[in-house]
Amino acid sequence: MITLTSDFGSPYPAAMKGVVLRRSDARLVDVTHRLPRGDVRAAAFWLRFVLPEFPSAVHLAVIDPGVGTERDALAIRAGEHALVGPDNGVLLPAARELVGESTLAAFRIEVEDPESATFHGRDVFAPAAADVHEAGVENLSSIDYLYPATDAVDFRFPRPQIEGDRARGEVLVVDDFGNVITNVPGDFLDGAERVRVNDERIPVGETFAAVSEGAPLVTVGSHGNVECDVNDGRGDEAFGLAPGDEVRLVVDR
Amino acid sequence: MITLTSDFGSPYPAAMKGVVLRRSDARLVDVTHRLPRGDVRAAAFWLRFVLPEFPSAVHLAVIDPGVGTERDALAIRAGEHALVGPDNGVLLPAARELVGESTLAAFRIEVEDPESATFHGRDVFAPAAADVHEAGVENLSSIDYLYPATDAVDFRFPRPQIEGDRARGEVLVVDDFGNVITNVPGDFLDGAERVRVNDERIPVGETFAAVSEGAPLVTVGSHGNVECDVNDGRGDEAFGLAPGDEVRLVVDR
Amino acid sequence: MITLTSDFGSPYPAAMKGVVLRRSDARLVDVTHRLPRGDVRAAAFWLRFVLPEFPSAVHLAVIDPGVGTERDALAIRAGEHALVGPDNGVLLPAARELVGESTLAAFRIEVEDPESATFHGRDVFAPAAADVHEAGVENLSSIDYLYPATDAVDFRFPRPQIEGDRARGEVLVVDDFGNVITNVPGDFLDGAERVRVNDERIPVGETFAAVSEGAPLVTVGSHGNVECDVNDGRGDEAFGLAPGDEVRLVVDR
Repeated sequence: MITLTSDFGSPYPAAMKGVVLRRSDARLVDVTHRLPRGDVRAAAFWLRFVLPEFPSAVHLAVIDPGVGTERDALAIRAGEHALVGPDNGVLLPAARELVGESTLAAFRIEVEDPESATFHGRDVFAPAAADVHEAGVENLSSIDYLYPATDAVDFRFPRPQIEGDRARGEVLVVDDFGNVITNVPGDFLDGAERVRVNDERIPVGETFAAVSEGAPLVTVGSHGNVECDVNDGRGDEAFGLAPGDEVRLVVDR
Repeated sequence: MITLTSDFGSPYPAAMKGVVLRRSDARLVDVTHRLPRGDVRAAAFWLRFVLPEFPSAVHLAVIDPGVGTERDALAIRAGEHALVGPDNGVLLPAARELVGESTLAAFRIEVEDPESATFHGRDVFAPAAADVHEAGVENLSSIDYLYPATDAVDFRFPRPQIEGDRARGEVLVVDDFGNVITNVPGDFLDGAERVRVNDERIPVGETFAAVSEGAPLVTVGSHGNVECDVNDGRGDEAFGLAPGDEVRLVVDR
Repeated sequence: MITLTSDFGSPYPAAMKGVVLRRSDARLVDVTHRLPRGDVRAAAFWLRFVLPEFPSAVHLAVIDPGVGTERDALAIRAGEHALVGPDNGVLLPAARELVGESTLAAFRIEVEDPESATFHGRDVFAPAAADVHEAGVENLSSIDYLYPATDAVDFRFPRPQIEGDRARGEVLVVDDFGNVITNVPGDFLDGAERVRVNDERIPVGETFAAVSEGAPLVTVGSHGNVECDVNDGRGDEAFGLAPGDEVRLVVDR
């Protein structure tokens, strides 16, 4: 199984699929091709969220604002999974989440003179993902154009500051529904019925239906983090929050 | 085969796919994940339109504005098909359309304490769809967390009032092209060359090309209902119509 | 393998998939269903770009502004591939690109009285694609409703006028990123460091990162043509260019 993730929209992902299918009979599963353009942090977040749901697979993930520059290309073994994509940090958070007790092994993909300078998804990453799949995740070192990588670019999500009933966090991503997903872990809200979000008092609810339609709420999302949402509406608009914004939360007892 | 339908956009559907694939080797086919948010009627319409085209399959359909509330979760056997989704009526019109001579059998999905309160697509419905697929549609009662459901929420599309050459109907959905799909059956137009739509005289055409580019027409869509369209344009804008609006049609002889 | 391409958005493509799957176990691969509506030239461009990446397959492509009119329906054998779609030129450029040394063979699909006049994707093309797949690409003439077609509508992209350092070309398509793809072949830029685009001096770069964020550049895209782009921005907006517009390029030595 090979999963595919990118920020390519349409129809470029199909070229990657064609390239893979010329080299492999693997089942292909689209994760999404509508990630925010060139947003390494959002891509790292969503890959970490989605990939652990999958059985062992090769995960091709191309969010690559530096395409054609000197940035490396990576294949990472993470337990029974492998991840293939640019060396810009996008793969590491998901790889760590997948790996459990195992250790990560990172390899640099060395492709001489790819056909294009702007579509390494097609010319570098898709062929590598297919080859990794065919060789088997445990045999990455048998692929002759893979070399051990010791200095892969890492990415860490910003950590919130939490003291008792107060948290200072950050918006990581806004999802398609407009839900504002922060980096504050959900247990911060344990037992709270109301929380101040940047000084506005908002009810805490377990589900959207805890408040009336169009009303704001704070909840714990399916990723385990604190979210600022609106029932049947867009949290980003109601709270005036965007990725990267600071969020101050104070539990209102 | 398992089909997947939701209003989740991207990338949440991928989490459902991962969950299914950990439990089943079934072929997965996306119907769409871009249904109008939380719109049970539109979802019921499109499922009824699309699912009968498929060979026997398990159809996972999550349009679930009440997620996390007391609403039940359902698995329905409809002939050789099964439908899995929330108990809000979204499944019933398609199930009836699929079932032919057979009778429907509805089961309540009882899952204790799902991991999240807001993503039952991942935590309740996807595992159930995979389990139904693995057990086989004819063996729903062998799944230990399914219980016969006797009071599933039904949904019926509003019926138009038709008297001779006059119909009073309603807009059911607007499709991606902007075509305005009403609940008036196509045979209402039999033999008509013009029809008044809310008092405006519009030509009836069999194809878009029956009128010049940018011009409005009334036609019978591929679902068999009367549509208000524009050739190479958006019917919803030209006619000023949205889902739920009343449509008065008078055949103009 | 059957690939699917259309301008249908959602959820109409699912009806085509259902129809195919009732007739065939073929692997289905979506190319895209978000091509610009009714734009034969854009569809011809993207099909020519994407399909050659695939191993041998049946390619179902429905961009069909003339649906329901007298236009024919086609199945074309192109080497080990087959293409199925409307006879409006959309298939020919890709077919020629695929065919290598072989010759094309075109067949007219004759279906009496399809169920709808507006959804031949479901009622004509999808069944034909499945039947072609089941019969095998080499056996098109064994399908009883296919007849040799001698006058298929062709489509040729406009050719640029190039004299030395000057080119007069045209915008063929704008992609999802806003990149403006012209019909001028990339080798026109060989060795150039700057080019005037409709009298504005623009740097030539091999990658987006050749210029600062938000700055315009001219590059050679992954299809081999000259593109007018913006690093981390939209070229169509910065250059004020849309499909069909004239582009005058002068290499600035």
